Amino acid sequence: MTLTGPIKIKSKAVAQEFLDSFDSFLFDCDGVLWLGSHLLPSIKETLKLLTDLGKKLIFVTNNSTKSRAAYTKKFAGFGIEVSEDQIFTSGYASAVYVRDFLKLQPGKDKVWVFGESGISEELSLMGYESLGGGDPRLDETFDFKTSPFLVNGLDPDVHCVVAGLDTKVNYHRLAVSLQYLQKEDSVHFVGTNVDSTFPQKGFIFPGAGSTIASLACSSGRTPVYCGKPNINMLNTIVSAKNLDKSKCCMVGDRLNTDIRFGVEGSLGGTLLVLTGIETEERALEEDGDHPQPKYYAEKLGDVYELTSS
Amino acid sequence: MTLTGPIKIKSKAVAQEFLDSFDSFLFDCDGVLWLGSHLLPSIKETLKLLTDLGKKLIFVTNNSTKSRAAYTKKFAGFGIEVSEDQIFTSGYASAVYVRDFLKLQPGKDKVWVFGESGISEELSLMGYESLGGGDPRLDETFDFKTSPFLVNGLDPDVHCVVAGLDTKVNYHRLAVSLQYLQKEDSVHFVGTNVDSTFPQKGFIFPGAGSTIASLACSSGRTPVYCGKPNINMLNTIVSAKNLDKSKCCMVGDRLNTDIRFGVEGSLGGTLLVLTGIETEERALEEDGDHPQPKYYAEKLGDVYELTSS
Repeated sequence: MTLTGPIKIKSKAVAQEFLDSFDSFLFDCDGVLWLGSHLLPSIKETLKLLTDLGKKLIFVTNNSTKSRAAYTKKFAGFGIEVSEDQIFTSGYASAVYVRDFLKLQPGKDKVWVFGESGISEELSLMGYESLGGGDPRLDETFDFKTSPFLVNGLDPDVHCVVAGLDTKVNYHRLAVSLQYLQKEDSVHFVGTNVDSTFPQKGFIFPGAGSTIASLACSSGRTPVYCGKPNINMLNTIVSAKNLDKSKCCMVGDRLNTDIRFGVEGSLGGTLLVLTGIETEERALEEDGDHPQPKYYAEKLGDVYELTSS
Repeated sequence: MTLTGPIKIKSKAVAQEFLDSFDSFLFDCDGVLWLGSHLLPSIKETLKLLTDLGKKLIFVTNNSTKSRAAYTKKFAGFGIEVSEDQIFTSGYASAVYVRDFLKLQPGKDKVWVFGESGISEELSLMGYESLGGGDPRLDETFDFKTSPFLVNGLDPDVHCVVAGLDTKVNYHRLAVSLQYLQKEDSVHFVGTNVDSTFPQKGFIFPGAGSTIASLACSSGRTPVYCGKPNINMLNTIVSAKNLDKSKCCMVGDRLNTDIRFGVEGSLGGTLLVLTGIETEERALEEDGDHPQPKYYAEKLGDVYELTSS
């Protein structure tokens, strides 16, 4: 039988075939495992099943606001034990990019952060001093004559701006970030992730991509993006976890980031779950502006519910 | 003699020819008349000379943070008497667009403002209630569960978002603006001006265009821009002041906004002054990404200094 189009996981046989096809699973988190602070059905059971079967579990999120350490606490809060080295955030991927691709020197070179602690904490663990970010002096109304970030000139040791989602975005942060970005010859421009929005409780709110777009516009520069679906993120994971890509499955709720990440990264398979922002109709679209998943399911928990019934 | 390329105003004869060629002058303000709070040399004298010669003077600025009323006060502070109807800001042009092109109903339809008082004051003068803008409740940290702009739903009478420069930009303002922009069928999207940056005391700071870019990215929408070099602005002026375009000269310090505005608007001429962000080299470039001015001068005051010597 030739299968065309995505396969829906809705029987025990298909669920079992899905499980047998891969030895590693990469999961997006929000919209797949949980919605905000609400764990989705049968998630704990599904993750335990996979662990018991000897599968490798890796968690890959474009959320740069939390560090990996903070993520392990979020998992623990749901009663799920996950170690830090199973987690890859776009903030961590950006820090890895700064270290391994840009080869900035820890203890010497500094990074200007436009974003939350999930970026600066990861940089700090690698030995990089970061400026900006959540510094409360940036909460003050901007005045170029008094801003402590401008009065004594820019810090000449800053060689990269890493920008991500920052719910404390204000003119002070935008203006100082722009000053660093204007040093095109000596300051790199890294964006955590391209997502223009994110869903929350029925709303759609501005995402990292939309504030990075503002900095890209004012500076006339294009950042390098490190989160999904950028291949930098996948290379980091594959190398760190020593994975066989053909035996990996990416599980996500977004066609244009998660599924694209798996398809363009040549992973063995992809699973779209419909607990996030996509619909069955979109999953089955052949001529859409997105790749098709290999598998799709109403929810990730169906994998457990179908195989254990 | 065939003249090719821009003519520099550096002799009495050329200055006199320049004066004789036009009966109306449209001036950009910052970088042409003043730099911030510092009036440039011989500006008062030049404006008086033009007035004495019976020329019409019109002031056209992409700054949407101040209303026309506030601009007359700025002029008065320099000892220059200018009436409100000689001034066209991008905030006023946006309000005119809302009234004359979108035909929103005063007293009924409302406008959500992402920007400063220069927009809401002009809308108010036309009878439109505006929401958002400088409302201090938007200065509060954003929480969708408590935001007074979301808890009772969006205002169904809002049929336009006007976005401009807002130095109070924050996540609350961006997030609520996005909720209105998501109502694509019933809410128009107007941007005051496209300038990605503006110069101030040797710095380059983020301009209206860069924050509008953020909203455009998150909403996936393209705004209609009303400021220079958009033809909407010129049409508003020509119609309001009953001008003969062939006898008008646009005077500005930016090739890509001011001079483009004059050239694409088919005005009789353009004058670039070098007191703002452009250089003589740029003015003379033939293959640049910008139109060439008809005339250029070191400063606007040269018109007075050369003809009165």
